[in-house]
Amino acid sequence: MPQGTRDFSAAVVRKRNYIFETIRSVFEVYGFQPLETPAMENLDTLMGKYGEEGDKLIFKILNNGLDNADKHNQAKEDFEKILSGKNTKGITERALRYDLTIPFARYVAMNYGQLTLPFKRYQIQPVWRADRPQKGRYREFYQCDADVVGSRSLLNEVELAGIYSRVFQQLKVPVEVHINSRKILAALAELCGGADKMIDITIAIDKLDKIGLEKVKAELSLKGLTESQVNTIEKYLSIEGTDEEKLTALKTLIGDNKTGLQGIEEIEYILNYQPQTSNLPAGQAGSRLQTDFTLARGLNYYTGIIFEVKAIGVQMEELKLFPEEVQAGTQVLFFNLGEAESKTAFGLMQQLRNKGIACELFHEHTKFDKQFKYADKKQIPYVVILGSEELAAGTCVVKDLRKSEQVTVSQSALQNFIF
Amino acid sequence: MPQGTRDFSAAVVRKRNYIFETIRSVFEVYGFQPLETPAMENLDTLMGKYGEEGDKLIFKILNNGLDNADKHNQAKEDFEKILSGKNTKGITERALRYDLTIPFARYVAMNYGQLTLPFKRYQIQPVWRADRPQKGRYREFYQCDADVVGSRSLLNEVELAGIYSRVFQQLKVPVEVHINSRKILAALAELCGGADKMIDITIAIDKLDKIGLEKVKAELSLKGLTESQVNTIEKYLSIEGTDEEKLTALKTLIGDNKTGLQGIEEIEYILNYQPQTSNLPAGQAGSRLQTDFTLARGLNYYTGIIFEVKAIGVQMEELKLFPEEVQAGTQVLFFNLGEAESKTAFGLMQQLRNKGIACELFHEHTKFDKQFKYADKKQIPYVVILGSEELAAGTCVVKDLRKSEQVTVSQSALQNFIF
Repeated sequence: MPQGTRDFSAAVVRKRNYIFETIRSVFEVYGFQPLETPAMENLDTLMGKYGEEGDKLIFKILNNGLDNADKHNQAKEDFEKILSGKNTKGITERALRYDLTIPFARYVAMNYGQLTLPFKRYQIQPVWRADRPQKGRYREFYQCDADVVGSRSLLNEVELAGIYSRVFQQLKVPVEVHINSRKILAALAELCGGADKMIDITIAIDKLDKIGLEKVKAELSLKGLTESQVNTIEKYLSIEGTDEEKLTALKTLIGDNKTGLQGIEEIEYILNYQPQTSNLPAGQAGSRLQTDFTLARGLNYYTGIIFEVKAIGVQMEELKLFPEEVQAGTQVLFFNLGEAESKTAFGLMQQLRNKGIACELFHEHTKFDKQFKYADKKQIPYVVILGSEELAAGTCVVKDLRKSEQVTVSQSALQNFIF
Repeated sequence: MPQGTRDFSAAVVRKRNYIFETIRSVFEVYGFQPLETPAMENLDTLMGKYGEEGDKLIFKILNNGLDNADKHNQAKEDFEKILSGKNTKGITERALRYDLTIPFARYVAMNYGQLTLPFKRYQIQPVWRADRPQKGRYREFYQCDADVVGSRSLLNEVELAGIYSRVFQQLKVPVEVHINSRKILAALAELCGGADKMIDITIAIDKLDKIGLEKVKAELSLKGLTESQVNTIEKYLSIEGTDEEKLTALKTLIGDNKTGLQGIEEIEYILNYQPQTSNLPAGQAGSRLQTDFTLARGLNYYTGIIFEVKAIGVQMEELKLFPEEVQAGTQVLFFNLGEAESKTAFGLMQQLRNKGIACELFHEHTKFDKQFKYADKKQIPYVVILGSEELAAGTCVVKDLRKSEQVTVSQSALQNFIF
């Protein structure tokens, strides 16, 4: 199978669906509506949106019908263009989506007149990137997006913060939700040599977690910032305390910088909307929003509020946080003990299925231990044994394999048995 | 967007998910386990599996990095091969899956040692085909497959028949499930000039629905069948009555043909297992399995039992069979009547969300009629109005837009209101 792609067997499909279903239900209670777009988009729609590096990582689809003799010469010319790094519709005019944002923008542009604004959509679908495969980085992976189009209200940011927090609360994964504003970073850039320094400064700050303060400072010096400017950034990055203390310290640092004050005001507005802990369901406290001025983002298309969710220390798998029922496969295996027995078992099985209980009848009449082994390997908790004696008596034996207990039940009562 | 592909907006996503969820739940109660494979497969895995026509309809993915100067000449040579209808790994080595069967076969081959046999998997995922787009035929569409590997037991066919029937019963779509055996068609071919006539005969019979008996007979004559052989086929296609009557007539026609008798025995075995109508949940009777000797299939890789589900007359949309709750979007819109009011509304909204009720707070403080219009367009059934008076009184007004009724509720009681 292609490098960087994966098969998902039953246990993993179920865990993934549990996570997707949690995210989906949170998007829904926040009033977002689902959208699905096709895997393929026109290449024109995607190219030039993700920077030069991004363009190279787009999977392009070869046009069909190239082996048509009439088209040979044109195709050869077109192919020469591809080799010179240009794209041409003669060879490829479609590509796999690289993210969900551009397809969403294309959808909004195509349907603008029909949309009720503000338009709040969510989308949970795979994307494809020709990245070099490595641990945790795949060529096919899911994104879960929620976006609002047609509103500049800060209430949308309040709601998005609520979504992050609620998703991880419901998954029981301890996280911190960090918030900053690119307006504050713009103000910092203005304090340190002008707006043109914004990209250098944010790219350097974005690396703080990985390379540490000294190396960030060194990078900034290399980019031509003076010692005094680097000191200002160090002061900025060293702001600590409660949200209130941090915001006070920041105000002192940026003085009357208009953009910066606007950023601070926006953050205060959002913090001010955080729900009282008492409003959260029992056991779902925690994961409060907190300011983090070291949050920067390397890309320069962000302009307003930025968020980052950080898992605290541990992974979901390690915490054994998946509810047990997520893994429920077949609940009952009916043993196959001959033709007449199987027919009766089959009827009983249909009754259980009518009640939503997942059952199987072993596919062939064979030895007990082979059938037990199948139940064991598939971790089926119950077996129902219906042999010639039970057939005559109108009963069956229900065996709980986890407890090694068994009980005889009349066939007519089986559908009321609690599995 | 690419020809033959579609966006799915909220209403359609919800209807599709309802259908997928129904199919998924039936697969699960029958003991099938989920599998998901990547959208891309190695081209080698797919080519040559779907016939010459099928190969041409596979979407191939252009390798990345072709604009690397070192690779120019090799790429040009490779491209010449593509133009002559050959594939080459220099240009494309991956493709989008064309169905779910070959990826499943690839999965089984890769994981055979780890599987518990019989291995019963289901898979609900999109596939891609470069077919000419036309009404009802798309380039991206879903398949819902259930397969059993590692068992030749007829019980599997019994179970598959049960799955077809139960899915459509649960969707409330009236259908007939038809069954035949390719062994019976093989016997017919033996009666009519030998086994080498099998493909001609089945391809002709497969068209019966569309072109009628006379044209099927004409096609058979063209293929070199004698008048007496064509008459035998006409007799075969004219068999009518109950299942029992049809099987009796068939036995007379095929005499002691061994393959044919085996086919009949298998069909009898499966019919014999059909559940009593009394075992079906109330209102889910109907859609019984029935023999249909005119069922043939054009492709020659089928060897045993074949099924076909035919919708009786009407489409799902026309029948208005989707439960109303499938379309439920946002349930409650909180009006935005100023900053202090919104903050209180926000806290109440979080309480409703904790109970799984989908809510929105209008994104800006604006005129009533604009907010009503938004609720109306989005078909939100309830609005909650919390203005300065209600803020002071600790109440809010709940308005049911469908009934044009309203009631004043204390803020603390809102979370117990039945929306």
